Amino acid sequence: MENTCYQQLTRTFQRLSRFSHLSAIAGWDMLTMMPPAGSAARGEALAELGVLQHQILTDKQVGQWLQGARSEDLNDLEQANLREMTRHYQQASLLPESLVEAKALAGSRCEHAWRTQHPANDWAGFSANLKEVVKLSREEAQLRAAAKGCSPYDALLDVFEPDMTSARLDTLFADLKSWLPDLLQRVADKQSRETLVDPVGPFPVATQRELGLEAMKMLGFDFNGGRLDISAHPFCGGVPEDVRITTRYDEKDLLSALFGVVHETGHARYEQNLPRQWSGQPVALARSTAIHESQSLFFEMQLGRSEAFLRRLLPSIVQRFGAQPAFEEANFIAWNQRVKPGYIRVEADEVSYPAHVILRYEIEQALINGEIEVEDIPALWNEKMQAWLGLSTEGDYRNGCMQDIHWTDGGFGYFPSYTLGAMYAAQLFHAARTALPGLESAIAQGDFSALFDWLRQNIWQHGSRFSTSQLIENATGEALNSRYFRQHLTARYL
Amino acid sequence: MENTCYQQLTRTFQRLSRFSHLSAIAGWDMLTMMPPAGSAARGEALAELGVLQHQILTDKQVGQWLQGARSEDLNDLEQANLREMTRHYQQASLLPESLVEAKALAGSRCEHAWRTQHPANDWAGFSANLKEVVKLSREEAQLRAAAKGCSPYDALLDVFEPDMTSARLDTLFADLKSWLPDLLQRVADKQSRETLVDPVGPFPVATQRELGLEAMKMLGFDFNGGRLDISAHPFCGGVPEDVRITTRYDEKDLLSALFGVVHETGHARYEQNLPRQWSGQPVALARSTAIHESQSLFFEMQLGRSEAFLRRLLPSIVQRFGAQPAFEEANFIAWNQRVKPGYIRVEADEVSYPAHVILRYEIEQALINGEIEVEDIPALWNEKMQAWLGLSTEGDYRNGCMQDIHWTDGGFGYFPSYTLGAMYAAQLFHAARTALPGLESAIAQGDFSALFDWLRQNIWQHGSRFSTSQLIENATGEALNSRYFRQHLTARYL
Repeated sequence: MENTCYQQLTRTFQRLSRFSHLSAIAGWDMLTMMPPAGSAARGEALAELGVLQHQILTDKQVGQWLQGARSEDLNDLEQANLREMTRHYQQASLLPESLVEAKALAGSRCEHAWRTQHPANDWAGFSANLKEVVKLSREEAQLRAAAKGCSPYDALLDVFEPDMTSARLDTLFADLKSWLPDLLQRVADKQSRETLVDPVGPFPVATQRELGLEAMKMLGFDFNGGRLDISAHPFCGGVPEDVRITTRYDEKDLLSALFGVVHETGHARYEQNLPRQWSGQPVALARSTAIHESQSLFFEMQLGRSEAFLRRLLPSIVQRFGAQPAFEEANFIAWNQRVKPGYIRVEADEVSYPAHVILRYEIEQALINGEIEVEDIPALWNEKMQAWLGLSTEGDYRNGCMQDIHWTDGGFGYFPSYTLGAMYAAQLFHAARTALPGLESAIAQGDFSALFDWLRQNIWQHGSRFSTSQLIENATGEALNSRYFRQHLTARYL
Repeated sequence: MENTCYQQLTRTFQRLSRFSHLSAIAGWDMLTMMPPAGSAARGEALAELGVLQHQILTDKQVGQWLQGARSEDLNDLEQANLREMTRHYQQASLLPESLVEAKALAGSRCEHAWRTQHPANDWAGFSANLKEVVKLSREEAQLRAAAKGCSPYDALLDVFEPDMTSARLDTLFADLKSWLPDLLQRVADKQSRETLVDPVGPFPVATQRELGLEAMKMLGFDFNGGRLDISAHPFCGGVPEDVRITTRYDEKDLLSALFGVVHETGHARYEQNLPRQWSGQPVALARSTAIHESQSLFFEMQLGRSEAFLRRLLPSIVQRFGAQPAFEEANFIAWNQRVKPGYIRVEADEVSYPAHVILRYEIEQALINGEIEVEDIPALWNEKMQAWLGLSTEGDYRNGCMQDIHWTDGGFGYFPSYTLGAMYAAQLFHAARTALPGLESAIAQGDFSALFDWLRQNIWQHGSRFSTSQLIENATGEALNSRYFRQHLTARYL
């Protein structure tokens, strides 16, 4: 067994990966299988493992090996792995264990209290807890910013989306803001002249589940290394060798569970096709949160809501649930492409979704950089919702800034990933379509093999080998821009 | 935070307990939920955690704290906890990590190969692997025996059943051997004159599952802190706060899954009622494998196969599956109390079961003590099966010494627990019946509260506070003996 610094590092990261495996499975179990009384003991067990992982990763010796490995003879791939190892080490080492622990506790308190404060529209109670979360997140951001030499918010952004900066986001989002509100208005006007028939339930859960499994199979999910289950909030979890997606069923609503499954299948196929030959090493992990989201949105929006795919799907729906007016082809397609601005982000269509994201981005950026305080959030929220979607959230915290638990755990810097993901997805789909003539008719016939091969070759198989920018430029021939997202929305909705 | 040696120990054992939690859940998941391709990564993750636990437990500092804590001022409970801590430490420290690892690898190889060797009746292939397992188990036994000053087999026995010795087992089993063969013969003669009607299926899995859940509810299983699932081999897993039992269904066989559930519910209620106030400490763990087995057999055999309980159960069966001749009360009871000697231990009734156990005990004892070799097993097996049950296993390894995977992982010393458990169960039931007048009519009416209170007070709530001998003497007023088991079998079957 060799004992170069690099070899020592690979063994350490493999060990960490094995502990992450246990954490991922115990975390999945907590949200899908665990009976209520198991909660406290599970939380303690996971926290104990988290502390151990932090200790192993931030051990001084890891720092020395990283230093030593730089002068060792490494090939390209090993260099990329060393770069990723260094990033993980630095991100973890910047934070004292006390701050990691305090943040976890404050986040858990804030999220727990939200469960009753949300239905009670209790902003006063909620903001008291949120202040503590913001205080600790600002501390974290300051520490990261000092080390990286950037603004506090940029330092958090970097954790989720390496190399992304506020300056670049501001440019990308300014572009979106220049045309999206107008597009949204025109789509709303156009669609207001169409009369659509809603699907009428009930749609039994067992049959919905069968349909979801059929869609997963159609989309190439590997059931030999994965599962479909139920959880309150859909997610994709597990490990690359054993990927687990979840959905939730509503017997009154057929398509929410189904497209949730299609979305998570996008995440899952990315995980299932990450490079196994480097398993356990950071370079084998998914590139970033936005690239991950690009895969789920590629499946859900670019592919899943396309006319070709909806045509392919419809016979299975009719076969399982019987014919009804909503399932006439033209109605079914139009119904799945309906744009309807509303208060709640997670229920938004793809045209109005960016409004929710940019609003949050602007508020969280100002908050972390210390330009506004927690008290200022509701007024700002209302102002931006009025400007974007013409909706008032004055006094309506429940449907405004308290609508989800995104900020309760201090996950600031994650939000932009949603819209970055949508832009990446559009740019990728455009590139795939250019490379693959006849793609649309293949999709309508249920043959996605060329499309998935393209994703495998251009995205999945690379893990974290390249930077996000390199990955996207290699795949699409140009840097991330909003042109293809705009083209896509215009073509589909106008 | 105090820093006495004892306090340091409790923190260390709590930490170990949290890692055991993760190991238990990941282990349960592996047998119930995991898709096949997850297997290798799971094995590595669990092995990594196992090495960590072994390192934490056998750290020299733990030894020093154990030494130091002896002269600290501890109350009775803390003394008991310290005794258990010392036992766990000593058991782990005796073995070099290399032996632990080699044994795990050899066991896994032997078990894996068994899966194809068993259907092929391939003794030559199997025995080659088993020799390696036996060699390593003998090494382990030698190391333990040298430290404890006893025979090699007694040293292994002690791991599963503290304070039990071959000398005591020989006496207990000699007693069984003096009357059980004759009893078995008389029961067989008696039952051969009765004509019974077999239940006729199919019994749909979903309805069997509902019936199992009803039985669990009837038997006081806490679903807020537990689950019922499916696995190839039924077991009780998880952690006291979150106990998970499994069964397997055969649509042709109603009662196998049901009584499997009743059996595991006995294990589960023990776990669910262990003393929570000492959670995470060794003193809060179940006393031993035989005491655990006594609880499952108490539920399955003493209570579950009693006339009173079968009468209580029958209406639920008829309600779910409809009436049929096999469900006439007298037939149903007799059918559930049928004695039928056979080759396979796990399918044995409670009268012939001890024959399987004593046979294995005698062989594994001689094997570990070096009196016989692996090659001698088939002939000895055949000889003892002929003597006990009149069945030949000559050349029939599949139904003989290769029938299960009990020896493949080197778990020598565990076997006696099954029959010790049956004897404990009979002795405990007798004591409970003596203490609780009207018990049988309460059972027939489905009121088990007094019985369960008695178990809680006498067994469950004590965890590992007392030695096994003390626990049983406190509960029943006398040391373990086979009198009550004999009375029970005679009363039920003759």
